[in-house]
Amino acid sequence: MKTQTLLAAIASTLVLPAFAQSSVTVFGVIDANYQHASQGGASVNRVNGNGGNQISRLGFRGTEDLGGGLSASFVLDMALNIDTGAGGLTSTNNQTAAAGSGITFNRRSTVSLTSKTLGELRIGRDFTPTYWNLTAFDPFGTAGAGSAANIIQSNLSKVSTVQTALRASNSVGYFLPQGNGLYGQLMYAMGENPSNAPNGTRKDGNYAGLRIGYADANLHVALAHGRTSLASGDVTTTNAGASYAFGPVKPMVQVFQDRKDNVATPNRSSGFLVGAQFTVGSGYIPVSYSQIHDNAAVERKAQLLAIGYVYNLSKRTAVYTTFSRIGNSGGASVSGGGVTGVANAAWKGTDIGIRHSF
Amino acid sequence: MKTQTLLAAIASTLVLPAFAQSSVTVFGVIDANYQHASQGGASVNRVNGNGGNQISRLGFRGTEDLGGGLSASFVLDMALNIDTGAGGLTSTNNQTAAAGSGITFNRRSTVSLTSKTLGELRIGRDFTPTYWNLTAFDPFGTAGAGSAANIIQSNLSKVSTVQTALRASNSVGYFLPQGNGLYGQLMYAMGENPSNAPNGTRKDGNYAGLRIGYADANLHVALAHGRTSLASGDVTTTNAGASYAFGPVKPMVQVFQDRKDNVATPNRSSGFLVGAQFTVGSGYIPVSYSQIHDNAAVERKAQLLAIGYVYNLSKRTAVYTTFSRIGNSGGASVSGGGVTGVANAAWKGTDIGIRHSF
Amino acid sequence: MKTQTLLAAIASTLVLPAFAQSSVTVFGVIDANYQHASQGGASVNRVNGNGGNQISRLGFRGTEDLGGGLSASFVLDMALNIDTGAGGLTSTNNQTAAAGSGITFNRRSTVSLTSKTLGELRIGRDFTPTYWNLTAFDPFGTAGAGSAANIIQSNLSKVSTVQTALRASNSVGYFLPQGNGLYGQLMYAMGENPSNAPNGTRKDGNYAGLRIGYADANLHVALAHGRTSLASGDVTTTNAGASYAFGPVKPMVQVFQDRKDNVATPNRSSGFLVGAQFTVGSGYIPVSYSQIHDNAAVERKAQLLAIGYVYNLSKRTAVYTTFSRIGNSGGASVSGGGVTGVANAAWKGTDIGIRHSF
Repeated sequence: MKTQTLLAAIASTLVLPAFAQSSVTVFGVIDANYQHASQGGASVNRVNGNGGNQISRLGFRGTEDLGGGLSASFVLDMALNIDTGAGGLTSTNNQTAAAGSGITFNRRSTVSLTSKTLGELRIGRDFTPTYWNLTAFDPFGTAGAGSAANIIQSNLSKVSTVQTALRASNSVGYFLPQGNGLYGQLMYAMGENPSNAPNGTRKDGNYAGLRIGYADANLHVALAHGRTSLASGDVTTTNAGASYAFGPVKPMVQVFQDRKDNVATPNRSSGFLVGAQFTVGSGYIPVSYSQIHDNAAVERKAQLLAIGYVYNLSKRTAVYTTFSRIGNSGGASVSGGGVTGVANAAWKGTDIGIRHSF
Repeated sequence: MKTQTLLAAIASTLVLPAFAQSSVTVFGVIDANYQHASQGGASVNRVNGNGGNQISRLGFRGTEDLGGGLSASFVLDMALNIDTGAGGLTSTNNQTAAAGSGITFNRRSTVSLTSKTLGELRIGRDFTPTYWNLTAFDPFGTAGAGSAANIIQSNLSKVSTVQTALRASNSVGYFLPQGNGLYGQLMYAMGENPSNAPNGTRKDGNYAGLRIGYADANLHVALAHGRTSLASGDVTTTNAGASYAFGPVKPMVQVFQDRKDNVATPNRSSGFLVGAQFTVGSGYIPVSYSQIHDNAAVERKAQLLAIGYVYNLSKRTAVYTTFSRIGNSGGASVSGGGVTGVANAAWKGTDIGIRHSF
Repeated sequence: MKTQTLLAAIASTLVLPAFAQSSVTVFGVIDANYQHASQGGASVNRVNGNGGNQISRLGFRGTEDLGGGLSASFVLDMALNIDTGAGGLTSTNNQTAAAGSGITFNRRSTVSLTSKTLGELRIGRDFTPTYWNLTAFDPFGTAGAGSAANIIQSNLSKVSTVQTALRASNSVGYFLPQGNGLYGQLMYAMGENPSNAPNGTRKDGNYAGLRIGYADANLHVALAHGRTSLASGDVTTTNAGASYAFGPVKPMVQVFQDRKDNVATPNRSSGFLVGAQFTVGSGYIPVSYSQIHDNAAVERKAQLLAIGYVYNLSKRTAVYTTFSRIGNSGGASVSGGGVTGVANAAWKGTDIGIRHSF
């Protein structure tokens, strides 16, 4: 091996590098839609390119069988805004290190060592355990005008401005081995502050969370809990979800509560989602109702009601439309984007788009 | 499908993702050259990596046959500066959202649904209809020292500083179905300003344009017209071109006029190009003369005269050289880059480079 | 060819682009580790994603046989920080044009024309000749806590802040043809300043360097010398290295000296490395000792002592651990990162990680 390392170093300075057979898969979702949105008397027409049915992305991944039930794998996954060609984040609530309009592998960049019996060790930037239930139990999969994230990770949420709301950089993760439907994810992510940092900031950005679930052909349930240490007050987030496929109808539900320590009220946000996907012909109809409220003296509340239709042209390609309404009360001003949020005014959005995956 | 969506969400949290067969093509052009340039007594030696024969790029594309004459496709196409490895734009006249030195798919990022009989619907960031004639009827294909864009999209042009001069973000496009040589492109792109934006800025950035053309084995003609709404005054651009292959000689011509509303003169720029490509052995000689002038009280004018030689080492690889001279008069100070433009002084540039496509 | 160029331009505006067979290889290294580091009483736990055994990267490359012993090739190679998914540089000592957190092909972006008998001509951004010995004769390959670059390109080094310390943009390179073990690299890179720039800055950023070496199955020796013109005083760097494989043991040595003109002392830094790789079972043990000192009135010195173990799970995948100690004296405050450097205090770092290449 030592010889190989040096020879490789030499070879790279020489004329003709040896081209190894590539063992990487390029994958992606290209999803763009036309949206008409309005709130409080203002309206806008726009093209959204971060995905109205599935989140737009481009990625590279590979796996290597190491023998004896062991494998190595990697995933590099970038968010895309198809409307501009620039890099995107599915939410602004991401770690700042990966933000910006230049493309980065901000969705996920990990290397893993997996044992069939012992589970997977994963290092890098990854989705947090406390994010998954939000998308797994949303009939719209947190994409587009109907995404429950429009309110659940809105400015009413105590977790929305936290950099680990969706993903965490500098993480070490462990996943239970597959089998019998039970699955589990454990993550610890580091803020990487030195031990001599000022008292409040020493742990700033540290995250610990876990998720445990069960999924079979019909039933899917999961529970997640996590805590992010922040100089401005730690944030704790807890959520759970369930779905069950009754033939062509799959109802789903999720509940969540987020709490921020050491701040005056409102310091808590909570809510739920109920929804379903109805198989219709070669497509499906997603429907959802969700709400979030905080514990302000006068409770602020936002409610999202959405219905859509996804028509599959193939396994990889679909056209879709979504109608969504976000109602605000108690002074809440949640918006689905495109126009500025207006207190107690409803945001309405209509998507019509194409999703192609590869 | 709904089951698949959820299972996919679950699977991505589990140990071993299923690797689908990739259906994407990686394509690109790597073109770099050494350039000596001079103007008004100053000179520079530099390496240009944005392409002297074809524009440097790296892209991903795929197409899926949906049956019944229908297909879905996508293109992600990034500009590259090979000299620095950073992201590039073939001109600074692009929409700011996609600018910056980090790489982005700033050349094109689109998803399409195409019917053999009805045509193509395309969403995303794409070349504008009013850009294409500039490159299609330039013997140098708007690349390198001989590119007519050096003057036609220079500071004398009324369209040069408009973000839709080459491409538009947030666009919805329609293309005529193929057949009989006739082709057509229609594009509407959105500035995405809300309806309650101040009067002048509400439509800022909106673009509408079309191009219609005919191409067969010998003849190619096309006409384009477009309008960009801008807070500083709308810009209208019109151009046309033609070429005809007489055996080994293909002469080409283009004319253009750009106009900016609601501003004092000079508010108009116009000009033309005449040129040809001569097949010589396994290569060709591009030659062109173009000029642009505005309607200032004393007309400012720039003229480009260029000749080159492209020697094809294969279908994918060529070496080339270009000699180009930009003359300025009436106070014009157009430059081909590398040195600062000097009024009434000629810019001279010599390229020698390699182009490799894949 | 001219016909093809135009038809290509037309085709790209039409419905169904013709998908050429791709001839590109996607390659990469995904290497991430957990590190505990300490210095002067402070400590930190962090995830490093730029690579602890090999530098993390993602790249695209291809080669085309042109016949007659001639070939064309390209390489696009981006540095990655797996911990954040953002773009990375293996050192901050790179040309600013390629910096920033958005990903760019900052490691290398080149196009080449290669003759089996005459050698290779290469244009673009590339590693400088004066960089290679640093990594080729380091048992740790300049990756991770044990990398000799931690001190040799530290703030004690006269070359560390120079943009050409590792790579140069705007370069034209020549490589000797392969054969008989002898190899050579010649590079000239341009600062691209115009001839009428102020006197001191006209040549700022120009680089010229060369490297000559010999490598066979056992022996490897190389010598490099280069000079970077800078407005703040030119920097000259010279280094050499040798290694020899005695069966399972490969000792290696390197020496270096860097000098900055027209500045007061300390204006010179120099030092050496001695180390070895020991094959042990299916892995190897890298060990190295290196030191650097400057010519300040009181000599400042840093010494790095590192030992590791790399266990190969396959040809492509390894797990590894590294223990490294950087001692400082004479007021030196060199750090291996994660905590702030403290004068005369030792930095200690422990890596444990996974490296997967494809």
